[in-house]
Parts: sequence; C-alpha cells; structure tokens
Amino acid sequence: MLYPNQTIKDNCLYIGGANTVELAKEYGTPLYVMDEDMIRETCREFKRAIYDGVGENGLVLYASKAFSCRAMYRLVREEGLGIDVVSGGELYTAMKENFPPEKIYFHGNNKTADEIELALSYGVGRFAVDNKEELFLLNELSVKRGVRAKISFRIKPGIDAHTFDAVMTGQIDSKFGVALENGEAFEIMKTAAALPGIEVVGVHCHIGSQIFTTEPFFGAVDVMVDFIARLRRELSIDIRELNLGGGYGIKYTEEDKPIAPAEMFSKVLSHLKEKCEKTGEPVPRVLIEPGRSIVAAAGVTLYTVGSVKTIKDVRTYVSVDGGMTDNPRYALYESRYTATVANRASEPQSETITLAGRCCESGDLIGKDMPLQKTKAGDILAVFSTGAYNYSMASNYNRVPRAATVFVSGGKSREVIRRESYEDIIRNDL
Amino acid sequence: MLYPNQTIKDNCLYIGGANTVELAKEYGTPLYVMDEDMIRETCREFKRAIYDGVGENGLVLYASKAFSCRAMYRLVREEGLGIDVVSGGELYTAMKENFPPEKIYFHGNNKTADEIELALSYGVGRFAVDNKEELFLLNELSVKRGVRAKISFRIKPGIDAHTFDAVMTGQIDSKFGVALENGEAFEIMKTAAALPGIEVVGVHCHIGSQIFTTEPFFGAVDVMVDFIARLRRELSIDIRELNLGGGYGIKYTEEDKPIAPAEMFSKVLSHLKEKCEKTGEPVPRVLIEPGRSIVAAAGVTLYTVGSVKTIKDVRTYVSVDGGMTDNPRYALYESRYTATVANRASEPQSETITLAGRCCESGDLIGKDMPLQKTKAGDILAVFSTGAYNYSMASNYNRVPRAATVFVSGGKSREVIRRESYEDIIRNDL
Repeated sequence: MLYPNQTIKDNCLYIGGANTVELAKEYGTPLYVMDEDMIRETCREFKRAIYDGVGENGLVLYASKAFSCRAMYRLVREEGLGIDVVSGGELYTAMKENFPPEKIYFHGNNKTADEIELALSYGVGRFAVDNKEELFLLNELSVKRGVRAKISFRIKPGIDAHTFDAVMTGQIDSKFGVALENGEAFEIMKTAAALPGIEVVGVHCHIGSQIFTTEPFFGAVDVMVDFIARLRRELSIDIRELNLGGGYGIKYTEEDKPIAPAEMFSKVLSHLKEKCEKTGEPVPRVLIEPGRSIVAAAGVTLYTVGSVKTIKDVRTYVSVDGGMTDNPRYALYESRYTATVANRASEPQSETITLAGRCCESGDLIGKDMPLQKTKAGDILAVFSTGAYNYSMASNYNRVPRAATVFVSGGKSREVIRRESYEDIIRNDL
Repeated sequence: MLYPNQTIKDNCLYIGGANTVELAKEYGTPLYVMDEDMIRETCREFKRAIYDGVGENGLVLYASKAFSCRAMYRLVREEGLGIDVVSGGELYTAMKENFPPEKIYFHGNNKTADEIELALSYGVGRFAVDNKEELFLLNELSVKRGVRAKISFRIKPGIDAHTFDAVMTGQIDSKFGVALENGEAFEIMKTAAALPGIEVVGVHCHIGSQIFTTEPFFGAVDVMVDFIARLRRELSIDIRELNLGGGYGIKYTEEDKPIAPAEMFSKVLSHLKEKCEKTGEPVPRVLIEPGRSIVAAAGVTLYTVGSVKTIKDVRTYVSVDGGMTDNPRYALYESRYTATVANRASEPQSETITLAGRCCESGDLIGKDMPLQKTKAGDILAVFSTGAYNYSMASNYNRVPRAATVFVSGGKSREVIRRESYEDIIRNDL
C-alpha cells in the first residue's frame, strides 16, 4: 500500500473506507475511484503550508489540467483554493460551478482569440501570458473591451529539475514562455508594461514535474527575485506577485519519496524571504500550482481481469478491460505504477507480470514487470495513484467509452462523472 | 506534396480539389479534412488486388480502429468491403449503419462478456479469438444462445517485421494471440475444435505496422500454411480461411516508400498459391485487414498558427491550436509528419521548425526539425497523412474539444463528424 487511506479487510482493498470490490460491482469497470476526503486534506495541507510561510500574502492554485470536471472545481471552490486553467474548456467547466473569477489564472502557450474573449468576459483574475503574439492579442482585445488585463508573464528561469525530455519545462529549449538568459524576457516585460490594455502584475515559472527535492525551487526563487529586482531597478516595473508553478512529486511506486507540503514550503518560503531581504525586494505575493500532488494519490483505477497469458521463459501478460484509453501514461512516458488484486489484497505478490490494456495496440500497457498476486479472469485489479492525468488524458481510442469516476467520502461513494455510453460515442457522427 | 491529390493554386493548398484555406475559414480549426474520393479509390485498389489474386475467394476487411465513425462504415459498406472491429463501440457504430454482419470480424485481446453478447446478437461473421479464457467465454455464451460461433484464432507466427517495440506484434513476446513455436497454438486449436459452441474456420496473424517490404508476408504465409497443413494432418481440422492482417505502410514523409496493393498482393498471393501447391493444401480464403493504408494518406489536419517563437541558436517553435489532443502520435511514438503552410503553399520551405501543440505539456509536439515556409500567427498550417490514428486516438486533454472532420469529394466538402462543443465536454459531469 502506498498511502494510509489504502487498507485491507477480509482480503479486499479498501480506499477511504470503501470496499473497492463492492465499488467495481456497483459501478462496473473500468472505474476511477477518488478519495474525496484525501483530496480535501491535501488541499488544506497546501493552504496551511503557504499560510504558515507568508500568511494572507499567498494563494494555492489547483492546476486543474490534472483532473478537471465540475465536481472537482466545486470541491476546490469549497476549500478556498484558486485554480489554473489552460483552455476555454477548463474555464467553461469552472464557470459552470461559479468559480470566483478573481481566483482563476489562465495559462497555456497558445490561447485563441475566442478563449481570451471568454476569459475577459468572465473577468478571470490573471492571464499567464506566454509569448509576444498572445500579449498583443490580449492587449487588443482588452482595449476593445475597455479593460486592462492583469498579467503574469511566463518566464523560463533556466533551471532544469529533470533529465527526462517530456517533463523538462524550465530550460531555454521549451515551447513555453520567454527566456531570461538571452534577454528576451526583459525586453518583453518592457513591451508589456507600455501597453494600454495590459497591467503587469507578476511573473511565473514552472521548472518541471515529479520533483522530489527543494533545491531546484531555491534556484528558481533566486533567479526570479533577481529578475524582479532588475525590472524594478531598470524599468520601474512593480512586480508584486511570484508564481512558482507546480511540479511537486507524488508516490507512484515505493521508490518515490515525495516531500510533504509543510516541509517543502517552509524551506522554499524561508529561502524566498531571505533572498528578498538580501536583494532589498519586498516579499511578493506567492502563488503555487499543485495539480498532480493534489489529486494523483487520491485516485485508484479498478479493472476486471480478462485473461492471464503466461509465455514460458518470456513474460506473463495480465489483460484488463481498460488500458491506454483510461491511462495513457505508460504509452506516453513509460510511467511506473503500483498495482494489486483488489479481491486478493492480503495474498503475497509472488508474481511478476506485464499489465496489458484491451486496445488493439501493442504499446497498450499499464506497466511492465510489476509485482502482483496470482490472478485470474474475473478478478478486480487496482492500479494506484491514477488520480492525475488519467481521466483528463483519456480517449475513445477503439471507440471504448470513457470510465466513470466516483468520489469516496467517509466510506460512501457517489458518481461524479458518468460512464460514457455508446450513444455518447456516436453523438457527433453524421 | 506527398500524394497527387495534394495540389497548389494561387499559393493555396488544395486537397481533392478543395481549397484548404477556405475549408479552415468555413469549418474552423483544428479540422480534419479527408479526401473521400481517395479513400474510395484505395478501397477499390485493395479489392482489385485481392480479386486479381484469388477471385471471389478473398475479402478485404477495413481495420476500422484506424478511423471509426458512421460515415466511414457507410463508405466501406458502399464499397463492398468487410470490416474488422475491436470493441463494442466500433461494432455499435457499424450496426447503426446496418453493416452486413457476416462481413464483420470481431478482434481484440480482451473482449468483455457484454461485447461478445452484442456481437452474437448481431450475428457477426467471425470472432478473432485471442486467448483461452475468451475461447471458453465465447463457447459458453454461444451454447447458451444455441449457436456455434465461427472463429479465426489469432496466432503469433514468430515473424518480426520491425524493430520498434510498440509496433512489433507478431513475435512471441506480445499480448496478442497464442504462439506457434512453443506448441501453444496447436494445443488451443485442438481444444477449440472440440467445443460445442465453436466452429473453427480460420487462423489469423498480424506481423506489424508500416511494413514496406513483401518478404515478411512471405514468411508469415509459409508459417501459417504449414500450421494449417499440420492441423489438417494431425487433428483433421479443416482451416478454410487465412487472415493475413494488416500493416501495409503509407507515406508520412518522402522517405517512406509504400508498395502499391496491386504489387504487394500479386507477389504475396502468388507466394501463397505456390506454398499451398507445395504443401498439398487447398488455397484458403484470403482476408487482409488494411486500416492505416486505406485512410491515413487521405487525411490532412488544418491548424491556425498562434505564435512563432525563435530561440536564437536553439530552435524555432511554431505553436498551433491543436496538437496531442488531435494527433498524439508524436507524443506516443515520435512519429514523423510532413507539413506545409496552406496559405503559402508555393513558397520555399526555407525554415526548420518544431511544431508545438497547445496543450500544457512539454511533450505536446507534432514534430521536431520539420522543414516549413516562413510563417506567422494567423496562417493555416496543414499536416499530411493524418487520416489514421488521429481522430480515433483524439482526447479531451486540457478539456480541448475534439475537432470536426469533413469529407471532400469532387472539390465539395461536407461535415461527417461535428466539432465538439463545451457542452459536449461537460455532458457527463455531475
């Protein structure tokens, strides 16, 4: 078990007090199960960590691309966090839940005019502007509307928290933001500050994903505070807000060692305050954007085993009724997961298996060489830490309907995203 | 230009006689454009190639996972091909178009009981059975219904057409089928032949994807005919049908050299007939399953350029309003594509750019280091050969609505899949 909300009773896996074998029976499989109590507790942990460091001068934004649906925006609103959205679709969903617009930060490297219009009409709190074309487009649309859009510019701080290409976002060779080291960031801030439809409020950086150390954040803080000081000194731009992005690691396997928010931000915010003092800068308002770290660990996906194929001296394939359609992360990044047989949860994990999906595609695996109990057709298989980037990245490949999502709270479950029907799948076919 | 249906007039790219710049204006972007005339012509090419080799003793099955929607099943039905489906969702869609059940082959490594029931109730022509558990489940459900299900068993012939892991499917270490070399296939055929709800009709193999040579198919034919002969000799099982699967390569870039169906099957079917004569086997009914090779080349995706980010001495990122949501193949396999600026189609491709999608994800690229014309925000960008595994693999990641698909015929266009709305996206949110 990776997290304390995962318990075993009568050989069955329980999540947040609910029997997963019963959940599979009640709602069918594949099924995303999310521990609502755990999500709320994690939201509070992040809030407390920021409050303990900078008091009211900070805000936690849930990076909603990790798991976006009406119920989640409702939960986040209730917990008093803000959100970051990266598209008109996410914004629209949040609007349906009357999410307070001033707590919405609109991200993305290529916002369309329609999306910007939607965001302006709803009055989102901040545009995280990515590039020059977007800056001019936003300025034009704001002027037309007679407003000034508050922006935070996305800066590449030149800090590498990683070596894996697809999750390395802070360095100069990235599609996101503008670079510091070549002077590009400085020039664009100068341009932005002079535009009538733009109010420059903050700067933003994001240095990677699944980060398990505080050092890269110290580096980002140093670079960003120096940049803020230079903007004040040379351009008299008053940057009042520093957004440090997300990237806080979670436990997919026992090898992952995440840092608790309290520890992470006690260190990072102390470092920020020291750096500001040294630099003579006022401590800016601090924003952070945890996404994965709020929802991933709370999620478990349940499948039904269809076949167990042992190829002597080669490999054992356990095939389930889902796969890359509900969790494309192995296919995309060879991400590692931990699994258990939910109806044999106390039995020893004596086997080493490859977990295969149901799609007509060789690469449709959930993991290779995973420890597992002996299993057979009809068993319920649980994959842990699937609360982030699973439902949100799901597809209808092979015209497989997307799974339902249930929230579990106090041992009780309720559906928050309905399972797709075949009718849903053909709805837009003409 | 990769294919003759791609032409240029007044600096604009035309597909099947339709101006793509006008299409982008009319339907919006991102937009999948498919040349219906080209798809129909390709269907006919495959039909002729099989007919020329074995006359009426063969059938082309369109592997519909490549591009599945009502309009496509309609087209395939009109062209007289059969289909292979891999899920209840694909089957359901085909049923809505009254696709002749006897021409439907039901594939997949993990069919659920519900899906098998649906297929039995519709009377699909053939179950391509993948494994033992599925065989017994199908037998049980058939017996209950008082029918005998006609099956073709999926065999791993031990032929590698490839080196790239994710598209290597014919070898023993695969989640699909049963292996020949360890005797497993022989044993299961013996078992299958004795089951009351099962009629063993054929054997099936699939040796890979994007194959550009005939030799791997010769190898598969040899292995499979030997196996058929052995089944007759030792078990008196009359295998009347050989399904050679798909995998016929198409042109994504100028470096790809596909073989025309006429040439491919003239050689492969001659080889089959010789092999049968040598072995003393009657020539079996021949089935092939082209998917990608029927639709990929006919498809072009149109995007609008949002930003052009030149990072000196590093790279130029051109960002468009789609990406891994409509085409996840670079993110999944680093697949290569060819692109052009549709409204500057005659201009020289003097730049080398990286084509980035709009998702909040570093890995959201359509390609790296691609030649392209000088371009700027507002231009229409066309990516070729996107007719297969683009729409079918599309997701709502970042809650981005899925693009519309239009068919173009004789220069005229019509929508065949509607663009998703934000309402579609939140439809199942509770």
